[in-house]
Amino acid sequence: MTTYHVQIKVMPLKDLLDPQGKAVLGGLHNLGLNGISDVRIGKHITLQIEAESELSAKTKAEEACKKLLANPVMEFYEIEMVQG
Amino acid sequence: MTTYHVQIKVMPLKDLLDPQGKAVLGGLHNLGLNGISDVRIGKHITLQIEAESELSAKTKAEEACKKLLANPVMEFYEIEMVQG
Repeated sequence: MTTYHVQIKVMPLKDLLDPQGKAVLGGLHNLGLNGISDVRIGKHITLQIEAESELSAKTKAEEACKKLLANPVMEFYEIEMVQG
Repeated sequence: MTTYHVQIKVMPLKDLLDPQGKAVLGGLHNLGLNGISDVRIGKHITLQIEAESELSAKTKAEEACKKLLANPVMEFYEIEMVQG
């Protein structure tokens, strides 16, 4: 069994409004930071998975995303396996 | 002026307890997903910065992190510039 480090990014779907991102964009402008646009905010999740192969670890991560971490109606996710 | 796509990861510091991560880990185990450990949850932020150079865009992103996006007492951040 090997331990795999997994990074998961869960972001609001591109077609949906992201009110949190809009609020942060307003905050950045109020702080005098210009030239910034299109702020979107999602979740970043790191976890460790013990599995027999990278493929099996990735399948487990997919399952975790589908069952708990991401809501497919509003979010998409990307899984990245990190060497370690 | 070029538009740079920036990805920012804001995570709880390694030495701090992450109660949200602990709760998610419990949820995953309850769902029957075993072999997963050390779940940590942070924010993932994407934004576009219009700047004259990649360096200037990165400086702006650093400033945004320090002033608004990350709380250095509890979080660290990583900035990644994406081609495009």
